[in-house]
Amino acid sequence: MKPQTLKGFRDFLPQEMSLRLNILAIMRKVFESFGFQPLETPSIEYSSTLLEKYGEEADKLVYTFKDKGDRDVGLIYDLTVPTAKVLSIYQQEITLPFKRYQIQRVWRAEKPQKGRYREFTQCDIDIFGVSSPLADAEIIAVISEVLRKLGIEKFTMNVNSRKILFKILEKVGIIAKNQQFSVLQSIDKLDKKSKEDITTELKSKGLDESLISKLYAAIEGAKLEDDPILSQVLSYAKAQGAENVNFVPYMVRGLNYYTGTIYEALIDGISLGSVAGGGRYDSLVSLLGGPDIPAVGTTFGLDRLVDASRELNIASQNLTNTKVLVTVFNDETIDQSLSVLTELRSADIAAEMYLAPEKKFEKQIKYADRNNIPYLVIIGPEEISKNIVKLKDLKTREQKELSIKELISKLKV
Amino acid sequence: MKPQTLKGFRDFLPQEMSLRLNILAIMRKVFESFGFQPLETPSIEYSSTLLEKYGEEADKLVYTFKDKGDRDVGLIYDLTVPTAKVLSIYQQEITLPFKRYQIQRVWRAEKPQKGRYREFTQCDIDIFGVSSPLADAEIIAVISEVLRKLGIEKFTMNVNSRKILFKILEKVGIIAKNQQFSVLQSIDKLDKKSKEDITTELKSKGLDESLISKLYAAIEGAKLEDDPILSQVLSYAKAQGAENVNFVPYMVRGLNYYTGTIYEALIDGISLGSVAGGGRYDSLVSLLGGPDIPAVGTTFGLDRLVDASRELNIASQNLTNTKVLVTVFNDETIDQSLSVLTELRSADIAAEMYLAPEKKFEKQIKYADRNNIPYLVIIGPEEISKNIVKLKDLKTREQKELSIKELISKLKV
Repeated sequence: MKPQTLKGFRDFLPQEMSLRLNILAIMRKVFESFGFQPLETPSIEYSSTLLEKYGEEADKLVYTFKDKGDRDVGLIYDLTVPTAKVLSIYQQEITLPFKRYQIQRVWRAEKPQKGRYREFTQCDIDIFGVSSPLADAEIIAVISEVLRKLGIEKFTMNVNSRKILFKILEKVGIIAKNQQFSVLQSIDKLDKKSKEDITTELKSKGLDESLISKLYAAIEGAKLEDDPILSQVLSYAKAQGAENVNFVPYMVRGLNYYTGTIYEALIDGISLGSVAGGGRYDSLVSLLGGPDIPAVGTTFGLDRLVDASRELNIASQNLTNTKVLVTVFNDETIDQSLSVLTELRSADIAAEMYLAPEKKFEKQIKYADRNNIPYLVIIGPEEISKNIVKLKDLKTREQKELSIKELISKLKV
Repeated sequence: MKPQTLKGFRDFLPQEMSLRLNILAIMRKVFESFGFQPLETPSIEYSSTLLEKYGEEADKLVYTFKDKGDRDVGLIYDLTVPTAKVLSIYQQEITLPFKRYQIQRVWRAEKPQKGRYREFTQCDIDIFGVSSPLADAEIIAVISEVLRKLGIEKFTMNVNSRKILFKILEKVGIIAKNQQFSVLQSIDKLDKKSKEDITTELKSKGLDESLISKLYAAIEGAKLEDDPILSQVLSYAKAQGAENVNFVPYMVRGLNYYTGTIYEALIDGISLGSVAGGGRYDSLVSLLGGPDIPAVGTTFGLDRLVDASRELNIASQNLTNTKVLVTVFNDETIDQSLSVLTELRSADIAAEMYLAPEKKFEKQIKYADRNNIPYLVIIGPEEISKNIVKLKDLKTREQKELSIKELISKLKV
């Protein structure tokens, strides 16, 4: 029986994986340059740690099972719950403010569909223990810097505050919590759907025409200056170099637990949805089993960033690290090939030797082509007798005779 | 109820995690410099892919469960089985020789004990599709280079061949496969236990005194030259710069599936066991469900390498990336602190600002100390009026007044 990969799960072959690792390396570097420190937690936790945190719908998506010791356990659903656990267990070891990044796989038993997987890598940064808008601003600055460092030139960051949204709702007389969240869900679509559609939707939720008009007017009339904290967040973020940050009063973000600033980043001209998003969630850590501390953070959508990088043709440089393939003419010339290989590597030139000397030269060229290796070195009896090598440029298919010294200085560039 | 971490699982707090990431980054760089390409596969596979591969004992350790669609699935037990799956599914996409590295978590429901975990990270490199001893040699050269690049100066690599061992056994008349493996298990301990103990053990396995003497004599008399392939492996490995490689005829390595060269790396003066080990396994890929191709590889013991690095006090440099903490005097001076922060970052100096301006200065120093940040910048009203900053060296506790320009050139070093 031929083995199969489960639906909703993915094998990342080298080309794809190199791109992913490139993007992750850039992220990690930015996170660390802002003073975020790495954290990793187990992939399996007690079910009691994982369940009843985000409601029934989320619980259904958690992979739970009995382990060999008959314990109820599950695979992690996100990285916030494990971090809340860490903050609860290691209060002695962790100094607040705690700025951590966490890049790990999580699992959700969702219906697989385009862009939605049962296993995916979450990339989170969060600041725990700081209520100052400096923290919110720093997260926004990190998002901006990550996108810039990835080579994404045109992006937009939408920023809003749940406080502004709730104030608007209260002002127009929508007071009940349930109704507030339901109305917000419709409002959130104002940039995707027509106003007419949203109006119909709001009517179906029990709002009359005059209330809806008041609501629209209040949203359109919302000013950044009305919320001094959000104003500070934006000005601090800009002072740290965040770019293209806009106040968008109808932006909601899905999750219920945000308490203040919310933000999302979109790549201009690509209809992928947000590539990063987050906000302030000052009550969540204690709800999840951690201490009662304020928190603000963001998650990056690795899969979307990979798609964007491919579409924009960025971050795809150096996908193969190997610059030159040293070919093997026959069994008798292996030592000479090895010696050139070693000299190239000593000069810090990423060099690889073809390992199956019994294979024809065409196979070796094909190997280089398939692996995007730009150069080939040929060392046969003729080259050995003349004490040179041939360098073949696989793009132009041109060949040149060079001494080892010339070879190294040519490839060193 | 306070959340707990499951036994056999670990939370990696930032200091520990930084060390792990440092080691992984060094490994990855060496792997890529030798032309190995990254592969990642799902953490969950069909049980039929995972089970009945390494025998009943191994099967008991696989975390199996029913997923939400009632499929029999399990968490991966190693990285070789998933790669065999990949080689079987993607025969069109993958060109042989296929040199891949794979760094992923695997799970085994073992009894947790010192150094043995239920979740750990495997770091594997393997070459598929090459029977030439060049491949075996390259793996040995990679191990040697990884250890050197990690800063481990004194290490020993033991190399042997299963072919030599089986030839010895046949020569002295131990022919039955079962008995061969049982005898090899005892032989493998010749460097750990006394010869008397091994003799007793072998007697209990049904060998008489004269047979045991013959066996010892054959092992002691074994010469590298007797095996032309292994001789080539060693000479090719040395030609590529592998160091401290010794032929050790009583070295066996645990796993049954090796067919030729076997090797292991030990750090001198540290009793950790091998930090890397592997060999040639030409029949395994097809047994695991992949195509019938030769293979050779090694696995690195990340946890042991972490322990060794800590013990030898290496690879622990730059554990915090942040070079300087920009402190905040009070709410009114935040903008000046932000401006210095941004200038430092623009100059590529890893700088962090203390995000809770309401906290006392002592708290800010404590934060820097706890996070191993070596320098502190102080910008209060006095410094602002004089257009300077104070730089505090947290090791010497000395303070200096500097212009921004001087600050940057001082920290740039």
